Amino acid sequence: MNAPADPHFAARIRASFGRQKAMALIGASLSSVAPGAVEITLPFRDDLTQQKGFVHGGIIGMIADTACGYAAYSLMPADSSLVTVEYKINILAPGTSSLTARGEVVKAGRTLTVARAEVYARDGRHVATMQQTLMMLAGTPDHPE
Amino acid sequence: MNAPADPHFAARIRASFGRQKAMALIGASLSSVAPGAVEITLPFRDDLTQQKGFVHGGIIGMIADTACGYAAYSLMPADSSLVTVEYKINILAPGTSSLTARGEVVKAGRTLTVARAEVYARDGRHVATMQQTLMMLAGTPDHPE
Amino acid sequence: MNAPADPHFAARIRASFGRQKAMALIGASLSSVAPGAVEITLPFRDDLTQQKGFVHGGIIGMIADTACGYAAYSLMPADSSLVTVEYKINILAPGTSSLTARGEVVKAGRTLTVARAEVYARDGRHVATMQQTLMMLAGTPDHPE
Amino acid sequence: MNAPADPHFAARIRASFGRQKAMALIGASLSSVAPGAVEITLPFRDDLTQQKGFVHGGIIGMIADTACGYAAYSLMPADSSLVTVEYKINILAPGTSSLTARGEVVKAGRTLTVARAEVYARDGRHVATMQQTLMMLAGTPDHPE
Repeated sequence: MNAPADPHFAARIRASFGRQKAMALIGASLSSVAPGAVEITLPFRDDLTQQKGFVHGGIIGMIADTACGYAAYSLMPADSSLVTVEYKINILAPGTSSLTARGEVVKAGRTLTVARAEVYARDGRHVATMQQTLMMLAGTPDHPE
Repeated sequence: MNAPADPHFAARIRASFGRQKAMALIGASLSSVAPGAVEITLPFRDDLTQQKGFVHGGIIGMIADTACGYAAYSLMPADSSLVTVEYKINILAPGTSSLTARGEVVKAGRTLTVARAEVYARDGRHVATMQQTLMMLAGTPDHPE
Repeated sequence: MNAPADPHFAARIRASFGRQKAMALIGASLSSVAPGAVEITLPFRDDLTQQKGFVHGGIIGMIADTACGYAAYSLMPADSSLVTVEYKINILAPGTSSLTARGEVVKAGRTLTVARAEVYARDGRHVATMQQTLMMLAGTPDHPE
Repeated sequence: MNAPADPHFAARIRASFGRQKAMALIGASLSSVAPGAVEITLPFRDDLTQQKGFVHGGIIGMIADTACGYAAYSLMPADSSLVTVEYKINILAPGTSSLTARGEVVKAGRTLTVARAEVYARDGRHVATMQQTLMMLAGTPDHPE
């Protein structure tokens, strides 16, 4: 059911991720790309923390947002791009170590896709859960215009 | 109705914000602190962008999350700290310039506070809107334990 | 800025609301219709309550959802209809009396509209706040096909 | 991991559901109760529909909200009650037939529980997905005071 429209989806996503300077800034990397499921890994770094020394909730949101986005993008045509419409995240536990965000497509519609991400710590702790809506932009490039 | 429990709330928030290394990483600063309303400003920087050259949606979430959190924290007692329970953000327009996130308390409850943030671009464009839930932790320090 | 595309928007919304059998079931009525802002009133009834005797949170969601939807619909062309993409609601206080949900458009886009609703009790208490995303369906009828 | 604190959780939930007059109004019934997972079934009825003849999105929210709530409540002590803090729902497809909402606990914390619900139509179509936050009220009765 989650068949990619573009057989080269993985290369397309790796190239797109490579253009995300914000991901480089926080040290996140793309650890897995499959049709409808993408994983992003974030090593713990002191400069990612909030006032209590935990990974900032907004940074947890950044990797979950990006994992959902690329999970959705993996099923879209090669000549499309996408925008995040909205997301909602529950922080379940403080981020005290390296984190992995796994995004998965819940429903891929013609215009809108709904995705979900689960963020886990290295020790298996469930750190956050996200529900997200994305919109496909047909025939628009996925790079600066 | 939004009377701060701690007369020194502004100094407490400025000190807490100063411990947020993630805010320093992205170059965000605290531009206004009032009872129940806090503003954070983020100059545009190339290394904050996603693949299309716009400010990453997760970074927009970071400043809105932080603005809501400190708006809530401004009304809490001096010996408390707080955690983000969850937030939901709609991205309304691409972030192509400096951004300001204004967080405001909607309802300050005994345990839970609901806050909202609006993010605007320098040219007045409405970039994002957030609704957030926070939980007060009575008698716990707002710094690394 | 919130100019209606259809001068007969108010009559169109009243007719659409009249087809909502679920609104009749719970006894809700359309108390105000303006461009980008719609109000729905719900008298308290014992058969709308949950196990503690308060108005069911889902019913609070129903009137807020409908108020947001018609606020968005008021700005859309006469030959369109719309679907709710998603909504997020915080319950701020128990519903123990008649309720009014006021929906307002935050951003009316070409395809997507973001709206918000505030639900108040008769005594002025703030009972709930909602943030919602809607999608316009151009050239589709707003009645059973 | 989801061991119920109260061995009589199922009877407690059935009694609480029986006090929900709003569930009787819409014709919903409790079709399954297990530790951390509760299912609610809603037969299609004409008086539950919106202007296009589909089950009202707010009514889909009602059964998903209730399924999440009782999934959370199944793991709580006998002398507690709970309140819905907030929920977020994506409508994935129109509700054109009987619906089943399955609520499951994602994380049961000391004060807050995060749950999720999936709503399916009789033909297997995925109709909605919800993410919810609930708060336990220790030592408070789950009935009108």
